[in-house]
Amino acid sequence: MKPKIGLITLGVTDLKRSLKFYRDGLGFPTHDYKDDAGIVFFKLEGTWLALYPKDKLAEDLNLPLVKGVGGILGGVTLAHNVGTKEEVGAVVEQAVNAGAKLIKQPQDVFWGGYSGYFADPDSHLWEVAWNPFMDLT
Amino acid sequence: MKPKIGLITLGVTDLKRSLKFYRDGLGFPTHDYKDDAGIVFFKLEGTWLALYPKDKLAEDLNLPLVKGVGGILGGVTLAHNVGTKEEVGAVVEQAVNAGAKLIKQPQDVFWGGYSGYFADPDSHLWEVAWNPFMDLT
Repeated sequence: MKPKIGLITLGVTDLKRSLKFYRDGLGFPTHDYKDDAGIVFFKLEGTWLALYPKDKLAEDLNLPLVKGVGGILGGVTLAHNVGTKEEVGAVVEQAVNAGAKLIKQPQDVFWGGYSGYFADPDSHLWEVAWNPFMDLT
Repeated sequence: MKPKIGLITLGVTDLKRSLKFYRDGLGFPTHDYKDDAGIVFFKLEGTWLALYPKDKLAEDLNLPLVKGVGGILGGVTLAHNVGTKEEVGAVVEQAVNAGAKLIKQPQDVFWGGYSGYFADPDSHLWEVAWNPFMDLT
């Protein structure tokens, strides 16, 4: 796998509040933002940043939502993007062979991509994704 | 502030185990690694990655360590690096004006830099740092 984190996703409880904080407060530029999209991407130098409702993030991970926690208590995923579905499987396999725990078997996802999740030795969550709409490889 | 995350730090419980996972398992290249440094940096494309003992991270943040949690349950910080001490204060002030909670007033830190922390609306932790040894601006 290429040594790169393509995207950091922060689980948030109020998408509009967080959008306001990062876009208007810190001045981060959004990427292709739509009011009803349910997710916000910021095109940053280096790794991009995404905001996503915490309950949806838990759902995507197929993990229980731990209510009331955030920040040092949770809700962050790191993403590594690849160019094909096959590579998703290969990277997840490489991680599992290195001792990672498989969290979600690579599979087609509702937004049109293909992804899987693994957890590192401290349970930090990594998504490995093929995204035909946005090139973060 | 420039729209950039310079560094992601993962709090870990066993630095050598995590080093092995990321360096030998995933193939990430270390930056200037020394066995006794107590921290590991990976020079990635885009945002860099650091591994740091979770108890030290809690200490640096002046926050209580929540034992037994990690991953979706915690231990991640995002860093924004700037070129001067003055800019650290300016960025922290910008964030606080945007609604962030001040976690640690900008100050000289033991490793020779200068940094402060703020928490976003969901308590995700950001460090704003001036680091004279490593240019992540």
